[in-house]
Order: sequence, then structure tokens, then C-alpha cells
Amino acid sequence: MIPRCIQRSSIALQQIGTRSRSCPHGLRCLSTSPTPTPPDPSPFSRYGRKAAKYTAFTCFSAVLGLSVVVGGVFIHDVFTYSDKHIDRVPVSPLALHPERGGPKNLPVASVLVGDEDDAALVAVKDKPRLVIVGGGWGAVSVVNSIHPSDYHVTVVSPDTFTTFTPLLPSAAVGTVTVRSLVESLRKIIARVHGQLINGRAVDLVMSERLLEVETVSVDGETRNIYVPYDKLVIAVGSVSSTHGVTGLEHCFQLKTVGDAQAIRRRVIDNFEIASLPSTSEEERKRLLSFVICGGGPTGVETAAEIYDLCQEDIINYFPKLLRKEVSIHVIQSREHILNTYSEAISKFAEEKFRREGVELITTARVGEVRPDRVIFTTKVPDTGKIVEHTIPTNFVLWSTGISMNPFTARVSSLLPNQVHKKAIEVDAHLRVKGAPQGDIYAIGDCATIETSLVSHLLELVEEADRNKDGNIDFDEWQIMVKRIKKTLPMAATHLEKVRTLFDLYDSDSDNKLTLNELAVLLQEIGNKITALPATAQVAAQQGKYLGHKLHLLAAKRNTLLSNELPADADEAVTGPFNYRHLGSLAYIGNAAVFDLGRLSFMGGLVAMYAWRSIYWSEQVSMRTRALLMTDWVLRGVWGRDLSRL
Amino acid sequence: MIPRCIQRSSIALQQIGTRSRSCPHGLRCLSTSPTPTPPDPSPFSRYGRKAAKYTAFTCFSAVLGLSVVVGGVFIHDVFTYSDKHIDRVPVSPLALHPERGGPKNLPVASVLVGDEDDAALVAVKDKPRLVIVGGGWGAVSVVNSIHPSDYHVTVVSPDTFTTFTPLLPSAAVGTVTVRSLVESLRKIIARVHGQLINGRAVDLVMSERLLEVETVSVDGETRNIYVPYDKLVIAVGSVSSTHGVTGLEHCFQLKTVGDAQAIRRRVIDNFEIASLPSTSEEERKRLLSFVICGGGPTGVETAAEIYDLCQEDIINYFPKLLRKEVSIHVIQSREHILNTYSEAISKFAEEKFRREGVELITTARVGEVRPDRVIFTTKVPDTGKIVEHTIPTNFVLWSTGISMNPFTARVSSLLPNQVHKKAIEVDAHLRVKGAPQGDIYAIGDCATIETSLVSHLLELVEEADRNKDGNIDFDEWQIMVKRIKKTLPMAATHLEKVRTLFDLYDSDSDNKLTLNELAVLLQEIGNKITALPATAQVAAQQGKYLGHKLHLLAAKRNTLLSNELPADADEAVTGPFNYRHLGSLAYIGNAAVFDLGRLSFMGGLVAMYAWRSIYWSEQVSMRTRALLMTDWVLRGVWGRDLSRL
Repeated sequence: MIPRCIQRSSIALQQIGTRSRSCPHGLRCLSTSPTPTPPDPSPFSRYGRKAAKYTAFTCFSAVLGLSVVVGGVFIHDVFTYSDKHIDRVPVSPLALHPERGGPKNLPVASVLVGDEDDAALVAVKDKPRLVIVGGGWGAVSVVNSIHPSDYHVTVVSPDTFTTFTPLLPSAAVGTVTVRSLVESLRKIIARVHGQLINGRAVDLVMSERLLEVETVSVDGETRNIYVPYDKLVIAVGSVSSTHGVTGLEHCFQLKTVGDAQAIRRRVIDNFEIASLPSTSEEERKRLLSFVICGGGPTGVETAAEIYDLCQEDIINYFPKLLRKEVSIHVIQSREHILNTYSEAISKFAEEKFRREGVELITTARVGEVRPDRVIFTTKVPDTGKIVEHTIPTNFVLWSTGISMNPFTARVSSLLPNQVHKKAIEVDAHLRVKGAPQGDIYAIGDCATIETSLVSHLLELVEEADRNKDGNIDFDEWQIMVKRIKKTLPMAATHLEKVRTLFDLYDSDSDNKLTLNELAVLLQEIGNKITALPATAQVAAQQGKYLGHKLHLLAAKRNTLLSNELPADADEAVTGPFNYRHLGSLAYIGNAAVFDLGRLSFMGGLVAMYAWRSIYWSEQVSMRTRALLMTDWVLRGVWGRDLSRL
Repeated sequence: MIPRCIQRSSIALQQIGTRSRSCPHGLRCLSTSPTPTPPDPSPFSRYGRKAAKYTAFTCFSAVLGLSVVVGGVFIHDVFTYSDKHIDRVPVSPLALHPERGGPKNLPVASVLVGDEDDAALVAVKDKPRLVIVGGGWGAVSVVNSIHPSDYHVTVVSPDTFTTFTPLLPSAAVGTVTVRSLVESLRKIIARVHGQLINGRAVDLVMSERLLEVETVSVDGETRNIYVPYDKLVIAVGSVSSTHGVTGLEHCFQLKTVGDAQAIRRRVIDNFEIASLPSTSEEERKRLLSFVICGGGPTGVETAAEIYDLCQEDIINYFPKLLRKEVSIHVIQSREHILNTYSEAISKFAEEKFRREGVELITTARVGEVRPDRVIFTTKVPDTGKIVEHTIPTNFVLWSTGISMNPFTARVSSLLPNQVHKKAIEVDAHLRVKGAPQGDIYAIGDCATIETSLVSHLLELVEEADRNKDGNIDFDEWQIMVKRIKKTLPMAATHLEKVRTLFDLYDSDSDNKLTLNELAVLLQEIGNKITALPATAQVAAQQGKYLGHKLHLLAAKRNTLLSNELPADADEAVTGPFNYRHLGSLAYIGNAAVFDLGRLSFMGGLVAMYAWRSIYWSEQVSMRTRALLMTDWVLRGVWGRDLSRL
């Protein structure tokens, strides 16, 4: 229906400000007007008249301005209905009938159907083949950082779109729509004249530089093909870790838009079923209890979003009893939620949740998840006794830790010296450890930078031990430190006090470090270095770094070759990857927190708007920006969409 | 990624006009500027300076105007983050533990959980119970036409939202998003303080005025309840008819947003799989052939939308070969597509499709649909010989005719004198034929107005035969005609020539019509009356008529009862339903056609914009208007969303 209070309006937006609180149409209403209303211009008040004039001008401009924009859009729109016709399309026969090869004798996609579509594509046809596996933060920022003519780019991804993951919790309750979070990979790749293969990477033949991709045919049967590469970037992300808990198949996760859609459906379902006359009280309480396992940003934000949904929408359109019986529970294994953030922030978030009646269960361990309940244990602080608890529920979100996806596991199993359990080990240049130099890179959640120094002991000594006496004196130690800092920037912070370290580990204080002493030193420093977190920020920075490096390698290729430098010339064109932490932020329900390293900032609406604007600016395309803005405005004006869809 | 050409822009919309055609970022571009650009203001040209001034002013106003609007939205937004708290909620124990009753001894939802939530709800608590079954055009327009305090309104619907069905073909290819077509039923019902029961009506106990509703519990098991009613409105729509064709399970339909989503996924799938190196040429051709069975508006619009998708998006982001190999086929049983429209329109549409290479197969009969092909027969014009054809395809849309859904069938089986095969027969007051007077109404696709006059022969004679001679003379005939026109407006057009009719059927020309002569006359006129089409327009008009009548009945209730008028006083408050056809329109791909009865209008973009603006104005809420507008603008600026989602 058209709300009465709008029927009168020509342009909805212009009226928002002037609607009355009593409007019953689910239209969020405002008691005061945003535009200054003119005071009664009595003959004695010149100011009154002036103000009136200004207001009139403002309104006039508003209308004029809008009409100009709308007009512009229309005129532009007219030109977008093309009638172009395609006659003949040049296609290499090899693309239509690919040759077979490789150890499994599969079709080898050495030429693609689109390779000769236009001049730009023909131009990159014979460039080195850059194959990027994955379509997330890492992959996209690589694509965005290389230049159009550098490589023949092929992206292999089971999804045809990239997702703005940080806003998935918002999408999970309909604050924003999932469409606003996704951008078609084909549109992103178009800039570098790349192509998309919609499939799942399953295996790797490093000797022949072939990536095995599983595609699904129209009949649903899987068909594997080889995609040849000169440079391969692995950016396939990760899967949630189970921590050996049973019954996780009854849990939701929040890693994809599919997850967000499923959660949204379940949440609305719970409220709809809870409002049925056929639902018993006990059932209703269960339907309205939402359990979130994991007190990290994802868990906390989802809890906050569910609370918002109840507070701002459910309360208006469902029986009030439902709102009253809603219970939200956050189960956290550590002592505080948001424990990776500053203490002040955890406290602030915990305080807010307590005020809102969101139950925080800390230092708890989930034992089992059943279709209708979550079973967990807590420790009694003083006695240390373990107590088991049960929460009946119809919604469990599992958001704790990450682990390898099958392809990552396969790759690391192919390489002898890959020992890490949760990711592929790479060096500071993001090259996969043990793979042919300069062929394969890994970034994002699926990769971790090797921090062991002791394994490089001999090389380091080799280089630093100038007088070849098998020992390292202080001058040599300084050289070594320089070298370490250069190859592994993450170690720098732990190597600041050069002298102190030297004396500390020079046990026999002969002002020399023997190999043994050195080994201990390097071992312990290595242990001190903490791995980079599995965040979008890290993935994006690594992607940007790698994309830039790949561009340099492409640009300087001939120079390098003419100087007879090795194919792997990473060191020659750029230094190792150096992560700069820009801070972490989290939404906690009409409030937000920012941890910017030294200082941290937290607050209500203002902080929330800041949080939004940061994510808004980080969007992958102007299109998603427009969509996000629309979503936020719509939520403000008409509330969230409550239809189960 | 942020397209270069936008990175520089502050407000995307303002820049649209000034972008260059060569922009490669999937950004639809425009070579000319919508705002008049100032000519070089040389010292000699006063006009130049003037123009410059005006342009500056316009731009300034545009910016100012936008900022005012944005500011307004922001200020309004701030007030939408409520922090209200709920303490105690009054709920009748009967709502929590409903009594059992009825023939099947099921729980009877005589009181609902939300019945005492606020003053407005308490006010309608004891009003007559109006139960509306369905959530489509008919149901919604009933809700929108009654007054908030008339009835205790309960809507029973398996979906929690209403759908703007006419734009489903657009949603099926992503020209608009499905979210823009749906509005939450709860929000629509809120105006009349009604409540939603999310379930499926399955049976009816007219004697006890109980509607049996099937609800689904949290464990997925079905639980039936009785919903008591004083007045029942059946508006459950229809299902597609099979016409006895086998293999329709391999076809798509286009009646719900679910259908639209499924179609969109399949279409994108087809293109993604077709672009895989592992797909053979034959498979590709099959994947890219789209078959639409049914040349009505839905079929034609879907064909047109698929063509648009290929022309405006696929061509830019998929290998060109795919666009070249796309084939669209429309199979129509009649001689022309859009055969319910004027001849000029069918011709226009057919011409357009021919130009665009969309294959039209007319006077064809689909025999069977297999997972990988459609088999149909055509008749050779001169010889009349039947020829069988096969089209390999991976997409078949079935959009031909309607038939009863299970509940409709059940209702009509409960009533003795319901003979119609495809819908429930109602009288001209939309009362279900044979049901207790004034209890049950049926509207929309699931209802058809009874057009048989002969069945009322005796009543008519009874009333008209003043001299009680068992015959009808001309004066009496005129009375009868008046009466018929009053009770069945649809018959009016066939009763204009009163005298001619009388003489024609007065076979023995004794200037009297015997009962037999009259029977023949009424029989033949009855046959001439064509039933109303199963369109949104009819459903909406019937809903509006019924809602208005129900309001009058509620308003005049006491007056009626005091005058000892029967509970069923429909005739007392309003005349029969009289359908006014406002014309039909259809989108045929960057062009549209309008059949306004006498005159018909067809054309390109201008017509398309007209088509859009009509549907835009028909939207159920301002929210969906805003969303639709956004969709159309976004399509214009960035094209359709190509991500499979």
C-alpha cells in the first residue's frame, strides 16, 4: 500500500524529514524537520524575511538539483540500450577442441574461447600466463594492482563473484541485502582483459606447471581440466575449524553470502513459527533463543545485528510477546569477547551487551551441538570444578578459528618441507616454500609467512661470518641483524636491542656467538614472532603487494633476462612483504569500536557512522557503494525487509 | 574495483553524464553531457558569460540540493535507532493454550498472541473476524480498501510477502532484483491492525465457520489448526495448467519470486558452463538455446528480457562466441503471439522479434519436454500434415494457462452446484455460489463470475411476469433486461438491442416469449458472455470492490440489523462487481505495447519508459518504488548483476 503520508509526496526523500511520529505504516518517522523551517515573516522582522528567502532558495535548489541529476541519469540511460550485432567471431580451433596432456591426460586449456575477441585480448594472448586461484580479498586486490597489459590473466573460482565479507553479519539479518556485498568477478577482471574459469582447483602438477580444475558440466557430472600457468597465485581462503566439536552440521557459519541468506531465512522462520497459534510456549522460547559460538568480531557483530533486528523491526510487526521472549547468547572460550582488541574495547562491548540483556558466557567450552540445543561447560572460578550447561535453541552460529580447505591441504602435502597445520607456508616474498622459485605464490587466509629463523642459520652465518672463524662477533652480528630484518621484516621489532641480545645469548661472554648460542638465539626470536591474523586487511595488503611485484616483474622482464638474472628475480624488483596494521573495527549495535594500535576509539551512533563510512570507502566498486547507501537509507526510512526470501 | 573513471568522482550520479564511451569498466557510458557545458566566455561574448553563470548556478544548486536531501536523510536516520524496552505484555491464556474443536478436534485459534498488544489491537479484538486467504493482488487490495477499525483481520498465507508479479520477467534476468518486487505482508496488514498466520489453507468447515490451516512446526512436521471466521475471502490464485504435456517437471514457471530466482540462476549457469573449456560445441549450442512455451505476455516479456541480457551484458563480459550462438525460441499454439492484444500489436511484436532473430514458432503444439530437449509438432499449412520437431535446450519456460490449486479444488468439491473446472464460481457480488450467503467471497485467479442466465430463468420470470400469464411480453421483457443488467453487468453489452432480441427469439411471433423461447434466448446470451481474464488487474479491482463493500457492511451493520435486514445485505449496500478494463501492456525489449481497448499504442524507448512509469506508480509501497528506481538506474549505469546468486 502507499502510506497516506507519502501519497501526498512527489519525491519520497524530500519528505522524509517532515513526517510525523504517529505515522502507522512501518515508516520510521521523525518529529523535527531537517530543513530550517521559516519563522513567521512579520512585517517587523527583517531577519524573518531573510530566513524565509534563504529557505525558499534552498528548497528551490534542492528540487532543481535533483531534477538535474535525474535528468542526467535519464539522458544517460537512453544511450545504454545497444543494438549492436555480431557477425563472425575469430576463435582458435585449439580453444574449441583442446589437446589432452599432463599426467592424467586431461584437456589442457592452453587457449580459451575468448582469447581473440578483440584487440586488447589478442594483445595479451601470448603474454606470460598468470593464473589466480580464488575470488576473495587477496585475488581481487592482485587483479586490481597489476596493469592491463602485463599478463594473460585467468581467474579460477567456484563463485562467479567476490564478496565484501566484513558486512556479512549485516546481510544476515537484512540490514543490507546480499546483492550489495557482491561484485561480478568478470566485471573486475575485465579491466585487465582477463578471463574467468568457473571451477574449483583440486590439484597441481608443478613439474609441468599445470593447475587441475574441476568443472561441473550441464548434467552435473564433474569434468577436470588442466589450466597451464607461468605464475600461479593461490588465494583460496580457508574453512572454519571444528575444534573437534560434534554436531557442527547443525550450526550456521558466516563465510559466504549463501551462509548469510540461510541465516536470514532461519531467523525470520523462527519468528514466523514462534508467532503461530500451533506453537507451544516451550517451543517459542527455543525458537527465540539465538546462540553464537565465538566472541570474535564476526560473532559479536552478528549478535548485535540480531539484537538490532528485534529492537527496530520485530517489535513493530510481530506480537510483542515474541520480542520479550527473545534471548541472545554469546559463548566465548576466552575470558573476554573481542579479546584481540584492546581491553577498553572488550569492556565497552561487554558493558553494552549486559545493558541490552545479551548473555555473555565467557571461559566456556562448547561440547556438542544438537538440532535443538547447545551443550557447553564452564569452570567455577574458585573451585575450578567443571559444570555442564544446556541452552535449547534453533539457531547456532559457529564462528571460531580457521583451517585448511582441501586444495590448500593438497598443495602443502605435495611439498616436502611444509609443516604448518592450518595454512601454506610462504617466505617473506609470499613465495610458496619448496615450490619452484617464482612459480607459485600464496596469500590471504590460506597462507602463513614462515617465521623460523634457525632453519636459515647456516645461510645467515655463511653470509655474516666475514672472518670465516665459524663464530659471530658483534660486528658480524650487526650485519646478520640487518640481513634478518631485510628478509623477514616481521622479526624487526624483536631485534631492536642489538647489543643486549648479543650479550644475553653470549653465555660464555667471550664476545662471540658460537653456532649453538646463535641457534638458541634465533630459535627463541623465531618463537616470539606472531603470525599475521587471517583477516581481510592482511589478504588485501598481500594482494596489493604481490600485484605490484608481478607488474614490476612483467615490466622489467627483458632487462632482467638481458642481465642474465634468474627467472625468479623477486628480490631484484622489490623487498619482502611488510604488513602495516591499520587497526581493527567492529560493530556492536548502533555503536562501534576502533582499535588503532596505540589509541582505541569507541562510541555510539557517531562511531557507527564512522564504521559505515570506512567500509563504504573500502567497497570494491561504485556499484556496491550505491547499493549499500540505498540499503542504509531504506533501513532508516522503512526498516528492514521482514519477508522470508 | 573502483573504475578509474570513477575514482576521481565525488558523487557517482553527478558524473554519469560526463564519462567517455571508451571506459572499459562495465560502466555504461555516454558521449554527451546532460548539463549544458559553458561555451568559452571570451571577453566579447556576453552570452558566453551568461551561460557560464547559469551553468555554475545549476551545478551549485545540484550540489546544494543533494546535500540538503542527504543531510535530511542522515538527520532522520539518527532518530531510527530506538532503545525502547518491553516489560510486561498482556496475553490471553486462551492464546497460549488454544481450545480444541471442530470436526477434526484441532486447536481453534479464536484468540491470537498479539490480540492485546496495544490499544488499537484491543479495539478490534471483538470485531467480526475477517479472514483473508492468500497474499497476492486480490488479498492485498482487500486489506488496503477496508478501514482500520472495521474488522479483526487475519491473513493466512504460505508466503510472508506479496509480490509485484508483472515484473517477474525482469527479475528473472536481473534487470530488477526480486527484493524490489516484494513487500512484507505484516507491514501491509499493520495499517488495519491485522495479523498474519504463515500457513497454507487446506480445508473449510462452513457449518462452523472454521478454516483449516496447515502450519509447519520447527521440526518440519505439519500441524493443522482451525481459524474461525465471520467473513472469509478466498484469494489464493492459481497454478499453471499442464495441458496434459509430459515432462513439465523439467520446465520453469514464472509465478513466484522463487521461480524468478531459479530462472536467473539457470540462465547465468548456462552462460558460465558454456564458457568452460571443457564444454563441447554441441553442448554449448544447447546451453545457449532458450525455449519459451506460450506466446502470452509472460512468455513474450521473458524472451525479450533474455534477449536484452545477451545484448547489453553477456556481450560485454563473456566470450563473444557465446553471444553469437545464443538462440531464443517462442512456441505458441495460436497463429500469433500476444493474441489477446490488438492485431497491430501482435504484428509489431512479431516484426521486432524477427529483426532481433528471436524464433517465433506459431500454431505449434508441445508434445513432450525432456531434460535436454523440447519436442513439438507443427501443421504444414496447405497439406495439413503434422510434422514433429526437436529443439535441444537447457532452459524451458512453461507459461500457458492456469488451473485450480488444491485448496480451490477442495472448496469447489464441497459445494454441490460448483461445475466450473478451473475456478470457484461466484455471483456478480463475488459471493461463492452455494456457500452460506455473505460468509465466503472469492476473488482473483481462483474465482470466476457465473455467466449462466438460464439457471436463473424461473426467478427472472417470477419477477418480470407482472400479469402472471406465464409468458413474457415486450414490456415484461424490458423489465427483465433491466434486472439482468443489474445482477450481471457483464451481460449488458449483449442486451443492448432489446427489441431485435425479443423479435429474434419470438419464433411464433405472437409478441410473447414462452418459457422455452426465453430459455433458448438466455442460454445463448449466457454463452456469449466471456469470463474475465486471470490478470492482476481483475484481481486488484475485485479486491478493491470487495474491500469497499466489507467496509460499508461494517459501517452500516447496526442500521441493517435494526431494519431487520438479512446478515447478507450485500445488495443493500452496493451493486454487483463491474469490471472496467484499463487496457493491457507488455514489454518487448527496449520497446513496449499498450492495448487500451479502442486505440493501441506501441513504440521504442519512450513506450518503455511509459511502461515502466505505469508499473512504478502501481507499486504496493514507496519502499519498492525506491528500490525499483534504484534497480533501473543501476542497470543503466553499471549493467545487470552477472554474479550467479
